[in-house]
Amino acid sequence: MRRIHVIGIGSGDPDQLTLQAVKALRSTEVFFLLDKGEVKDDLTRLRRDILDAHLPEGSYRVVTARDPERDRRAGGAAYPPAVGDWRSARAGIYERLIAEELGEDGTGAFLVWGDPALYDSTLAILQEVLERGGVRFAYDVVPGISSVSALAARHRTGLNRVARPVQITTGRRLAEGLPEGVDDVIVMLDAHQAFRAYADQDMDIYWGAYLGTPDEILVSGPIAEAGPRIERLRAEARERKGWIMDTYLLRRNPGDR
Amino acid sequence: MRRIHVIGIGSGDPDQLTLQAVKALRSTEVFFLLDKGEVKDDLTRLRRDILDAHLPEGSYRVVTARDPERDRRAGGAAYPPAVGDWRSARAGIYERLIAEELGEDGTGAFLVWGDPALYDSTLAILQEVLERGGVRFAYDVVPGISSVSALAARHRTGLNRVARPVQITTGRRLAEGLPEGVDDVIVMLDAHQAFRAYADQDMDIYWGAYLGTPDEILVSGPIAEAGPRIERLRAEARERKGWIMDTYLLRRNPGDR
Repeated sequence: MRRIHVIGIGSGDPDQLTLQAVKALRSTEVFFLLDKGEVKDDLTRLRRDILDAHLPEGSYRVVTARDPERDRRAGGAAYPPAVGDWRSARAGIYERLIAEELGEDGTGAFLVWGDPALYDSTLAILQEVLERGGVRFAYDVVPGISSVSALAARHRTGLNRVARPVQITTGRRLAEGLPEGVDDVIVMLDAHQAFRAYADQDMDIYWGAYLGTPDEILVSGPIAEAGPRIERLRAEARERKGWIMDTYLLRRNPGDR
Repeated sequence: MRRIHVIGIGSGDPDQLTLQAVKALRSTEVFFLLDKGEVKDDLTRLRRDILDAHLPEGSYRVVTARDPERDRRAGGAAYPPAVGDWRSARAGIYERLIAEELGEDGTGAFLVWGDPALYDSTLAILQEVLERGGVRFAYDVVPGISSVSALAARHRTGLNRVARPVQITTGRRLAEGLPEGVDDVIVMLDAHQAFRAYADQDMDIYWGAYLGTPDEILVSGPIAEAGPRIERLRAEARERKGWIMDTYLLRRNPGDR
């Protein structure tokens, strides 16, 4: 039977690999890398560097495929269906990669930034491939350091206050309002800096971009002061590198509840 | 200047250590282990095994101290103050350990199960020690694989659905009701199996205890069926081992919104 590892590789620092991830890398013959186009060449290179660092040359193969285009204009209620179409297109690609590039007893792997459990579609896509029935395989998951954990560590802060909940959400949802009953909100996938809507509130923000890489930028402080600084740094970095990956924690101060 | 590493060591599997954590272990002279009494001897032993596995004998010292007793009867509004008193007692112990056991240029470390950012008090306590002003030190944080990530990986599931939020909360809060607008809820620190209140709802539960250790138990399924099974296994395991560490994901099915 074919075997697939879904390996969380941390948020960008190669030292965030776990020992379990290194073992999984070493038991892999074929790595499947999905290429998002030139803009994210840096990310493809980072993954290749990780393989180079831990595996003897010639002991593995890398197969790259082009990621299907996703309709990023779709917002609101149209968003999940757009993601669904994209997932199905991706499932077709994964199915072909596994069937054609992996022998009957071969072991392949997908490398996932951060933790495969958080805002990543690899697990859902593999499940869809299995449901199609065109190729059979067993798979396991190696957890990784998420950008959320990396962010908190770099800011040396906890994510929750004593006995309080914490919510992880998206920029789209934050734009609709702060969640009820939660003072600590982690925001991912925010292309539009939804935190700007909260500049007049008594909140702190802990922001990080390119976490764990040499380009890392960290800003924290009261949102009224830190917010405009983040906007400026974010725009500059995005312009300079052509892409950005960032995340932040918004913390409502107790007096503001 | 004294240096302190706060090192996330994962949820129980020694292979969940990151390469960064291993490097931090190797640069540490003195490890501070807080002993919670006989019941959790297993956990102290696991930490010592991790040190043995990665460090040459004689290259480090372990200093253990007894954790202050915490008033676990305090509930509701009294809970945060009770935790506050306990933290202050702990800060006194940490201050003494750092001042007395670490030379002026020494490096010490606290090992934290899971990720230091999630429901752990070490960072807040170190901050309190610094604010007291009795001893000066620099500190950094090494993120770890949280029990949340480990749980999701073992169940091979994501924590969120497409474009949806996820909330991490406590058993106490879940007992007060499901959070608004969230279908995926991760529950930690639940000594009373608050999930039982939701047995009649259209929800799935993904539960895990002793994650990553040889004692690991996993159960998942519709809560009406899986819930009673978890209750039984949990009671048996707690009886057998004398302690339990567990966590779970509750997933509301879309039709139930």
